[in-house]
Amino acid sequence: MTSHNHQFRLLARPVGLPRSSDFEFVEEALREPAEGEFLVRNDYISLDPAMRGWMNDRKSYVPPVGIGEVMRAIAAGEVIASRHGGFKVGDKVTGVFGVQEYAISNGKGVYCVDTAFAPLPVYLSALGMTGMTAYFGLLEVGAAAAGDTVVISGAAGAVGAVVGQIAKIKGCRAVGIAGGAHKCRYLLDELGFDAAIDYKGDDVKAELRRHCPAGINVYFDNVGGEILDAALLQLALHARIVICGAISQYNNTTPTKGPSNYMSLLVNRARMQGMVVFDYASRYGDAARELAQWYSQGKLKSREHIVAGLETFPETLLMLFRGENQGKLILKVAPAGR
Amino acid sequence: MTSHNHQFRLLARPVGLPRSSDFEFVEEALREPAEGEFLVRNDYISLDPAMRGWMNDRKSYVPPVGIGEVMRAIAAGEVIASRHGGFKVGDKVTGVFGVQEYAISNGKGVYCVDTAFAPLPVYLSALGMTGMTAYFGLLEVGAAAAGDTVVISGAAGAVGAVVGQIAKIKGCRAVGIAGGAHKCRYLLDELGFDAAIDYKGDDVKAELRRHCPAGINVYFDNVGGEILDAALLQLALHARIVICGAISQYNNTTPTKGPSNYMSLLVNRARMQGMVVFDYASRYGDAARELAQWYSQGKLKSREHIVAGLETFPETLLMLFRGENQGKLILKVAPAGR
Repeated sequence: MTSHNHQFRLLARPVGLPRSSDFEFVEEALREPAEGEFLVRNDYISLDPAMRGWMNDRKSYVPPVGIGEVMRAIAAGEVIASRHGGFKVGDKVTGVFGVQEYAISNGKGVYCVDTAFAPLPVYLSALGMTGMTAYFGLLEVGAAAAGDTVVISGAAGAVGAVVGQIAKIKGCRAVGIAGGAHKCRYLLDELGFDAAIDYKGDDVKAELRRHCPAGINVYFDNVGGEILDAALLQLALHARIVICGAISQYNNTTPTKGPSNYMSLLVNRARMQGMVVFDYASRYGDAARELAQWYSQGKLKSREHIVAGLETFPETLLMLFRGENQGKLILKVAPAGR
Repeated sequence: MTSHNHQFRLLARPVGLPRSSDFEFVEEALREPAEGEFLVRNDYISLDPAMRGWMNDRKSYVPPVGIGEVMRAIAAGEVIASRHGGFKVGDKVTGVFGVQEYAISNGKGVYCVDTAFAPLPVYLSALGMTGMTAYFGLLEVGAAAAGDTVVISGAAGAVGAVVGQIAKIKGCRAVGIAGGAHKCRYLLDELGFDAAIDYKGDDVKAELRRHCPAGINVYFDNVGGEILDAALLQLALHARIVICGAISQYNNTTPTKGPSNYMSLLVNRARMQGMVVFDYASRYGDAARELAQWYSQGKLKSREHIVAGLETFPETLLMLFRGENQGKLILKVAPAGR
C-alpha cells in the first residue's frame, strides 16, 4: 500500500475564474484508517459548477471550503483498507472524497455501487448525483407532467442532458439550449431532444417563441443571466422555473445579473424555486432504481467527458466555465495512459 | 335621471409617470340599459398600482386598456336603472366600472354589498379586492402558518396593511416595510405589526437581520427593486416570496431591475411565485365571509384614503407612486363638499 497521498488544497478564494495559484498541490503522509473508518482510493473525481460556489466565503447550502482544506468534490473509487463494518476492501463507492488520490471516510454519505451494472464513472454521472439532481429537479420541483414543454439551459452539460432525457421518458417535449452547433446536434441526434437552440448563434428569444408556441411549462435553469431572462418572456400560465444553477454568473466580479423579466412570474402566476439535491437523500434509493432501469433499457444515456491526471485539476475545472465539456466532466485520478 | 356621463379615456400610453395629457376627460350622452343590463352610478373608484400596468401595450394577465377606451378601474356604487334579473334599483354593487360617473353593466364580475354592515368604500378596501388579494396571496401563495415571520413591503398601502393584519390573526410575526416614520408608527400603533422598517431612513438589510433573526418565512412583495433584493438576503429555509406587485418599477423608462440576489432561492430552497387575485374568483365568497367576520370583531381594520372629485383622477393617481397614500386610495366621484 502507498504511504503518500496527493491532493489539492484551497489556498486563496478565487476572484473571477479560479487560477492555479488559488490551489496548492500537496503531498502528505497517508494515515491508517481508525476504528469505524475506511480508506478509499479515488479513481474518478466529479467536476461540478457548484464547486465554484463552495470556494466563496459566503452563506450557502453547505459551508465554504476553508482555506488550507482539501478542495471538496464528489468522487468514486475503491475501498482498499477498512475498519468499518459497512464497507469492505474491494467495495466500489461514491462519496464526498475531495480532490485527492486517497480519502479516509467514516461512511457518511457514501454509497456502494455495482460496476458490473455500469462503469464507475457513470455513478458520478447519470446514475449518480448528476442524475439525482435532474430527477428531483424536474419531477419534484418542476412537477413536469406528460404533455409539458420543458426547456433546459446548459442542456449538453451533465445535469441538463439527463433532464432532457427524463423529460422525454415522461412524455414531455424537450427543448435544449446549448452553446454551439456541435452540442445542439448531440442533443437532437444522440439524446432525442425535440429541439435545440444554439445560444451562441441563434436569437434565443425568437427560437423559444418558435419552439414553444404554447409557452414553457417547465424551465430548468443551469445558467442564469440573459438566458433566464429570455425564458421568462415565454412562460406558459402556471409555469415552474427550477433554479438548479447559474453558471454564467459564478465567476462574476460584478454583482449577479438579476432576472429583469421576473414580473412574468406575476403575469403567468408562475413560480421560480431553488433546489439542492442533498435535500432528497432519503429518496435517493427510489430514484437510483428508476434511473438504473431506464439506463438498462437504453432510454437514458450517460455521457462522460473524462480528462486524465489529478494534477490537471485547476485547468480541467475551467472547461466547465468555458463550455468545453459535453456531458459530465470527470477527472480521472491516474495520469493519461495508465 | 341624468342624461350625461363624464369619464376619463386613455389618450396615450404613458412613458414614465402618467401625465394629465395621457387622458382625455370626456362628456358623453348616457344611453339606457338594454335588456340584461343595468346602470350604475359610481360613487367611489378604487385607485390601484396595477392600473399603471393596464396602460401599457404589453402582454399581461388582462388585455391593456385600448387607446380611446374608458380607463379601467374597480368601483363601487348604486344601481339606478335595471333591466337585469339579478340586480335591482337601489342595490349597492362593486365591479370593474371604470373611471367614470356612470357605467352600464351586464352583471359579469359584479358583487352586491351590504352597506348596513360596512360603508361602501370598505368594499373597495379590506372587504373588497384589496382584502381578497391580501388573503389569497398570504394564505395560499405564501402558505403562511402560525409562527412564521412574514415581511411585507408597501405595508402601509392598501394590500400590505391587510396582509399584516391577517398575518397577526393567523399567529405570525408581522414585519412591515414602509416609507417614513409616520407610516411606521401607523403600522405599529394602529395595525399591530410587530416591527416596522422605514426604507427611507433605515438600513433595510440591517433592520431585516435585526427583526428576522431566524430568517423570513414569507415575504409579501408589493414593491420590487432594492427592497426585494434586501429581503432575498434574509430568507429562511423553504421561504415563500409572493410577487403581488413591483410599484418601484412601474414607471421605469429603463429596464426593470431584476433581483440580483435571486440565487438565495437556491441556497434556501425557496420559491418566488406570482399571484393575480382574479384566479381565486370562485372562492371570493369564503374569503369575504372570513374577512367580514374579522372586521366585525375589530381584528381587521380598513383604512381608506379618500380624495374627492372625479376630475382630479390623473393627479390623484400619482399619489400611489409618490407614496402619499396611507391605506386604500379611493377617488370619490362627487366633488369635495358634496
